[in-house]
This record gives sequence, structure tokens and C-alpha cells, in this order.
Amino acid sequence: MSPPLKNIQPFFVMEILNRAKELERLGKDVIHLEIGEPDFPTPAPVIRKVKECLDQGQIRYTPAAGLPELREAIARYYRERYHLDLSPTRIFVTPGASGAFLLLFGMLVADGDRILLGDPGYPCYANLIRLFGGTATAIPVGPETNFHFTQALFVENWTHDTRGAILASPSNPTGTIVSRETLADLLRFSERRGGFFIADEIYHGLEYAAHSPTALEFTDEVFVVNSFSKYFGMTGWRVGWAVVPDTFVEHAERMAQNLFISAPLPSQQAALAALSQECREELDQRCRSFAERRDFLVAGLIQLGFAVPALPQGAFYVYAECSAFTVDSSEFAKRILEQAGVAITPGKDFGAHHPERYLRFSFTATIPRMGEALTRLQTFLAQDRSARAR
Amino acid sequence: MSPPLKNIQPFFVMEILNRAKELERLGKDVIHLEIGEPDFPTPAPVIRKVKECLDQGQIRYTPAAGLPELREAIARYYRERYHLDLSPTRIFVTPGASGAFLLLFGMLVADGDRILLGDPGYPCYANLIRLFGGTATAIPVGPETNFHFTQALFVENWTHDTRGAILASPSNPTGTIVSRETLADLLRFSERRGGFFIADEIYHGLEYAAHSPTALEFTDEVFVVNSFSKYFGMTGWRVGWAVVPDTFVEHAERMAQNLFISAPLPSQQAALAALSQECREELDQRCRSFAERRDFLVAGLIQLGFAVPALPQGAFYVYAECSAFTVDSSEFAKRILEQAGVAITPGKDFGAHHPERYLRFSFTATIPRMGEALTRLQTFLAQDRSARAR
Repeated sequence: MSPPLKNIQPFFVMEILNRAKELERLGKDVIHLEIGEPDFPTPAPVIRKVKECLDQGQIRYTPAAGLPELREAIARYYRERYHLDLSPTRIFVTPGASGAFLLLFGMLVADGDRILLGDPGYPCYANLIRLFGGTATAIPVGPETNFHFTQALFVENWTHDTRGAILASPSNPTGTIVSRETLADLLRFSERRGGFFIADEIYHGLEYAAHSPTALEFTDEVFVVNSFSKYFGMTGWRVGWAVVPDTFVEHAERMAQNLFISAPLPSQQAALAALSQECREELDQRCRSFAERRDFLVAGLIQLGFAVPALPQGAFYVYAECSAFTVDSSEFAKRILEQAGVAITPGKDFGAHHPERYLRFSFTATIPRMGEALTRLQTFLAQDRSARAR
Repeated sequence: MSPPLKNIQPFFVMEILNRAKELERLGKDVIHLEIGEPDFPTPAPVIRKVKECLDQGQIRYTPAAGLPELREAIARYYRERYHLDLSPTRIFVTPGASGAFLLLFGMLVADGDRILLGDPGYPCYANLIRLFGGTATAIPVGPETNFHFTQALFVENWTHDTRGAILASPSNPTGTIVSRETLADLLRFSERRGGFFIADEIYHGLEYAAHSPTALEFTDEVFVVNSFSKYFGMTGWRVGWAVVPDTFVEHAERMAQNLFISAPLPSQQAALAALSQECREELDQRCRSFAERRDFLVAGLIQLGFAVPALPQGAFYVYAECSAFTVDSSEFAKRILEQAGVAITPGKDFGAHHPERYLRFSFTATIPRMGEALTRLQTFLAQDRSARAR
């Protein structure tokens, strides 16, 4: 048989992660700041609720769009958090945000379509777009625009064959939040051009100053992706959701049936419990911990000589510039892992716009652990400096 | 925004199902023989095990290919059941068999590729193939070939742009099992042509005479899909697996990372428990119940005047011919639901090869309930006959 036709580049972070695990098996202590996964456990009330559901027992397929009571609870969440009235019929529960992206790209991306996305950004977007026959056009964004699109960038890059755009706010890997004004401009622009707009809002809820606006505040003609993995801290359950315009409801239903039949029932029950008031208080407490960690990590990195050109306003990432120390952040990350036992993700995983200058640090470890990481980095940098001086 | 570009036909069974639920809300009793979902609950040891895991608590992402211990347990299952030595590295745990199909089609189907599949067959295949830019070529198969491909059909239909084929055995909707000889021929043929072969084995374990051969007995250069939904009775957990050739392992890993990150952890823990000896005994008992139900339903349908041109040898479906009563099985199914309160799936959902002659009955109800369904059908047919006679 011939080799696979559609090549997908591996994530560099997997190489870091695998080597980290190897080092751990050899008895070395590794501090993990590379993974996009909260270190908090599933909230206790969620576990309690799922166990009750398991006892009652029929774990069957649900409707393709999800349990009606979960879709209603998500609609309530939009009412409480954003003061928005959203019909539950527009909400599709999916197997993780991954499932939501499959659902949307499956519906929206056709052969030859160009889709605009920001560089640096989440690497799966481009891979999935290619899988459905589209072309992902990565547009360099930097500190001067808070690592986000602007209307000027849309004007410049939106060609006749551009069919839509994706924007993640808070962003991975930078944690920056797009302003209300810019978001409104971008939505208006893509609507005028007859294109689609996907707002990746999976880091909503993890914000350290103002709230992120949801694209749904500005228009109903938008596709929104969200997840129970980040703010709700439930990665391993694999449950997320998509909101689609009214006119796409029927099509999304068919697409969901074909792509995944339904999201797992126990995970949907977990999601329902996570939306309860009891959980939300715990989750907001965790968000305050993340804010403290952010302040601690950013200050520590700056003190060591890293630059943080855009302060993360949400998510749990610092996209730090390491040009003071190296011209190759990938090689640098490897050496840091080997010599300091600190695992971080190099910029390479997020695009082609000067990735060699950047490292992504996740603040998904406790402050004492991050303190230890900073101490190790300090020692590493001192040795590295003296080695280069020789 | 313009309407969706890629249209996917809805499943007719959803219309039946929605109407059935409407009738139930109006207080009518409906006997459900339309859905491809076992009526047995998740085995008790599985529930126990998952609850223990939930108590221990960290519900995190797993490796993209699944928990190592689950992949090893699946390899053991192949050893016990098929006397096959399979490397766990070739086994990918997926979010349902749906996830396995996405994984395989994502790797294997490129623009313009023709993929052969049997008609009647599972309708999602063609939709997913189209989604990835391929063309699904449905080849009519009938009772004369036990509703399966033969080598002659491959010879006749395998063109220069044919890139592969899918075969499900036991088949949905017919429950027929391909013979060892034919399967070996088909595998040899597609290998010689440099094409891929996907064996959908999700109904393995539910067999009522001889065991189904697995395609892996004949070659390592084959893609196999299986699931915990049918024999293991765990639909709502959404967990399945794919086996890929050695040369595809690395590519499948990347594809899995992009498509779904990982299957849900609680579902993987459930799957691990389902493979235990304790569960397997219960599952084999259920299989014997299905065998009794099959005999009961087939005999009952024949007595009523339906034809069953190929006895189901596995799965839980009877594909019954209703030409004695109607020239339009879809309209007939609707009337049966309205007048007799029995929900069944018309042939239309499974292809274009004389679907109007067939109805699919699932024996996923108890014998007393199916007895009641047969009684209602008898009354319905008598009334229908006398109405036509008038």
C-alpha cells in the first residue's frame, strides 16, 4: 500500500513531552509547563453527579445535538454570563472543542476555500482545514496588534477566494483578548464579504482583567466554539459545544449524526453538573489562582531577562520572547529540558511568524513548582551565558 | 451568509424516531425496532470500575492513541478471540467507531478518490468519504451474494481511480457474514491493486453460527474498525478502536491528535473493564439472547408473509422484504408506525439498490415486546389487505 497522501506535521510539543516522560522514567524530576491542560481535578460535585447517573444506568446514545437539558443549561449560562438570549436549538454539544471544529469545518470548508487565521495560533486549525480541502492562510500578528487580527489586516488579506476566518480570544499561545471594537469590526467585515466567522472562545471564563466579549453579543450570524476543558477544567471528559446560526441548525444536526452520532453521555452529565452554581464558585476560585500564577510567572520571566511583549489577559499561557538568549527557541527548549528539567513549548508549534524567538509557558503548575522552575532556569541561563562567554 | 455547500441527506430513521417520540408524548405505546442500539444496560462490573476510577480522580487527556493498558487489553482480546498476535502500537482507541472512520478516511481518502462500498450498507460511510473529497461508489449487492462483495464484483468495478473499499461483516442492515474465502480473495485483490481495505468489524462478537473471520487473520496490510457499542453494549460511552498497518502508525497518531486529541478517559476506563473475563461471560450470555430473538423474529416475520432472503448470521438486524405488501417500504414504515405503533427503518436509509422492497427490523427488544409487535403487525396487515381489497 502506498504511504499516506495527506501529511500532517507532528506537534513539536509531543517530542518535548515524550522526552520529558523518558527523563522521568530515568528518575529525573521534570516541571511541566508545556501542556495546555489545567492541573486542577474535575470538581467534586461533578464526580458526585456522574456517579449518581451511572447508578441509574442506561448509558445510551443521546440526540446528536446533545441532551436537551444540557443545551438548555448552556443557554442559561449565556444568559447569566453574557446577558444573551440564545435559543438552545442553536447549541450543539460535541466531543470536545475538537468535535465542534470538525462539525464547523465539515459544514463550511469546501475545496479551494481560503480561511484566514492568525499566526501564532492553535496548530490544529490549519490541519483540519486542509483535511477538508481548504487552504489555511496564516496571517502574521504580533505585539503591535496584541497578537490579534485588525480590520486593516482583513482588508489587506481577504481575497475573492477567502471564505471565512477564525479568531481565538483569549488566544493560544498568547493569552491576549481581542477588544470589543475590533471584534465588532471583524464580524461586520466578514459578514459584508459574505464569509463565515468562527470565534474560538474555549478560554472564556479564564480572564484576568475585563471579560472577553463573545461574538454572539454582536451578531447571530457567527459560529462559536467553546469547551468544558479549560475554565471548567474537564479535559479528559472530552466535551465542548458549538453555537451556529439558525439557518445552519438542520445541517449541523445531520453533520453531527455522521461525524460522531453523539457526545458521550457520562461526559454530558458531567458538563451539566459543571454548570451548577456550586461548581461555578469553585471554578471562579481557580480562575483567581490562575491570575496569581500569571503575575508570578510573568514577573519571574521578565526578571530572568525574557520579554513578555503582550501581557496574557486570559487563558493560562505566557508567550515569552527569548531573543536575549538564543536565535533558535526549539533548540533552546530542548536544552532547557535536558539541563534544567523544565518542559516548555517552542514557538514552532504555533506558526511561522518568528517562532524561533518565542517560548510558550503554561501556568498550569502551582506557584512553588513554578518558583522551582524559575530557579532552575536562572541556573541554566547563568551556565549558558558563561559557556557562551568562553 | 450563504447556505451550506456540502449537503448531507438526513437519515430517514430520524424522521421515524422523531414521530415515534411524538406519538409517545401523546400517550401511545410504540415498540422500537428501528434503532441500532442494544437494549441491555452497561454491564455492572463496568459501572463499578468507572466509579472507582472517578474516585481516584484525575480525568485528563490520555495519549492520542489511547491508554496504553487499554491498547494492550485489546491486543490480548485479539489473542484470545482470534489467536492473533497484534502489536498494541497498531491499535488506536477512538471516540466511537465514528472516530475510527474519521481517522481512517482522514488518512486515506484524497480528492477524487473512488471508494467502493456495498449497497445496502451503513449510510455514514458515503457521507464521510464525500466530506474528505472522495467519491463513494455504491455497488449493488443482493441475496445472491449474501449481500456482500465478491471478487467478481471487485473485478468489474475496481477502476483506475479506485483507491480502496470498505466491507462490513456482520453487515448492517443485513446481518450477513462474509465467508473466509471471499474475504481472503477481496483482501488479495485490493492489495494487488495497491488499494486500501477497511474491514468494519463493529458487530463482531454478535454472531449466531460460525464466528466472523477478522481481516487481520489474512494480512497486516488492512485497516480494521471495531467498537465497544454493539457486542459490549456500551453505545453511550462512545468508544471504539482502529487497527492500522505498521507503516501508518505514526501518521495515525498525528491524525488522532488533530481530530480528537484523545478519546474520553472515563469511557476508556469503561472499555478496559468491559474486556475483563467477568464482563465477557455476561456479554456472551447476551449474545445467546440475541440469537433466540433472531430466531423468534425471523420466524414471526416469515409467518406474516415477509421474506427474509438472507438469514442474519450476526448483528441484530433482519433485512426483510415487504414486496408482498407494498411497492414503497418508506410509506409502509410510516403507516405501520401510525397504525400499529411499531417503529422500523425503511430500506431507503441503506442505499439505492431496491430500498423500496426492504425494511430493517432491529431485534433490540425483548421477545415479549417483539411478540406484541408481530401481533400488531398481523392486525395491521389484515386491515391493510381488506382496505386494498375494497
